Amino acid sequence: MTYCVSMLLDTGLVFLSDSRTNAGVDHVSTYRKCIVFEDPGLRVMVMQSAGNLAITQSVASLLQDEIRAADDRASLMNCRSMYDAACLVGAAIRQVEARDAESLKHHGLEFNPCFILGGQVLGEAPRLFNVYAAGNFIEATLDTTYFQIGESKYGKPIIDRVIRRSSGLAEATKCALISMDSTIRSNLSVGLPLDLVIVRRDQMKVARHVSIDADNAYFRSISSGWGEALRHAFVQLPEQDWIGNR
Amino acid sequence: MTYCVSMLLDTGLVFLSDSRTNAGVDHVSTYRKCIVFEDPGLRVMVMQSAGNLAITQSVASLLQDEIRAADDRASLMNCRSMYDAACLVGAAIRQVEARDAESLKHHGLEFNPCFILGGQVLGEAPRLFNVYAAGNFIEATLDTTYFQIGESKYGKPIIDRVIRRSSGLAEATKCALISMDSTIRSNLSVGLPLDLVIVRRDQMKVARHVSIDADNAYFRSISSGWGEALRHAFVQLPEQDWIGNR
Repeated sequence: MTYCVSMLLDTGLVFLSDSRTNAGVDHVSTYRKCIVFEDPGLRVMVMQSAGNLAITQSVASLLQDEIRAADDRASLMNCRSMYDAACLVGAAIRQVEARDAESLKHHGLEFNPCFILGGQVLGEAPRLFNVYAAGNFIEATLDTTYFQIGESKYGKPIIDRVIRRSSGLAEATKCALISMDSTIRSNLSVGLPLDLVIVRRDQMKVARHVSIDADNAYFRSISSGWGEALRHAFVQLPEQDWIGNR
Repeated sequence: MTYCVSMLLDTGLVFLSDSRTNAGVDHVSTYRKCIVFEDPGLRVMVMQSAGNLAITQSVASLLQDEIRAADDRASLMNCRSMYDAACLVGAAIRQVEARDAESLKHHGLEFNPCFILGGQVLGEAPRLFNVYAAGNFIEATLDTTYFQIGESKYGKPIIDRVIRRSSGLAEATKCALISMDSTIRSNLSVGLPLDLVIVRRDQMKVARHVSIDADNAYFRSISSGWGEALRHAFVQLPEQDWIGNR
């Protein structure tokens, strides 16, 4: 499994993904699920993936092939908008589907990749897309400040409660880490290290890309601090005497 | 969908279930998912259900038929232990499966009921079981203080963090309500009113059975109070300056 979350804010974008893949609990590995495409000053894109690793790696390989191609074919590094970039991701998904889906089905495997693609191309505002297995996609609007893929449920309530478009990048990063921590605690198949990427609006480059492992002091302080804060908040709420005495 | 949670504590049991069923978002109804079987002073059992309503209602009907039968057949009201009661629930599930599963499959429907059965029979301690669609079941042990069925993920992290066997009944009820509130906020298919049942250890009867709707002052205070407490806790946690300035 996987958990990736990304947030689109007034001041930029925050991407956080875990790195655990598993084919059964006896076959657990670490693979990064986050790729950065960057031409500083002109464009920056971050892609996160969830689903069958063979599929998502193939999609990423096709996108990278397009970039390396000597001819003038469209790629993430020359397309004119984030919308066009999302179309390219969708087209790569469909290419892998055309090649692999039938065989996968034969082996009882679903064609289930999904991607988050966010970033900014010079000339437009930062944008964020959720690309589905069918190659279609939705874009985050003013009402949608974030997308999640993979094991999204455990870590959703806290985002819903605290994140708005106006949230700062550091605040959003804190929320993403809390959301990830809740997910890691509840689901063995989501695990460290984490990939954190922060993009500031109008810089057209990565502001920070950091790998967060168990030794990261800030993540540890968030993880233990949030547990304590929750327990404290819980104790503070009133109890009702439902049955006459406790 | 459904969300039911039950907790086994040193001092008794707490059961909380929602009442929303849906067959598509245009077909939403209210059905209680919690049934009490009680012979005060001798036995008390509470059964919660999730899954296809036609299946879970059939299972409940069969169990009630057994109780009403004039002959001496085993039933929830005469069995000697909670273990035997869980076996009876499993047997009723298998009876419905034998009758309905093939036709359901034909219509593309899964045979997916699941049940929580908890309570106390005179002569043994309170016990709590999670009964699966196959009619088999697991029992809560010292390491497992709760079971959830239905839409369980949104409301799981808070239970994991605050509930222990030693938690009081009022404290556990508060936690169950917070867990339910988080689920209702995140999943449209889980909704009010709620069925709350509290059983005190060694009373062999229901201590409190209450329906909680949107007007319930305590649930409203928990719901709004928890949101505020979370936001407050979030603000209190430190932010890291990841990118030099915010």
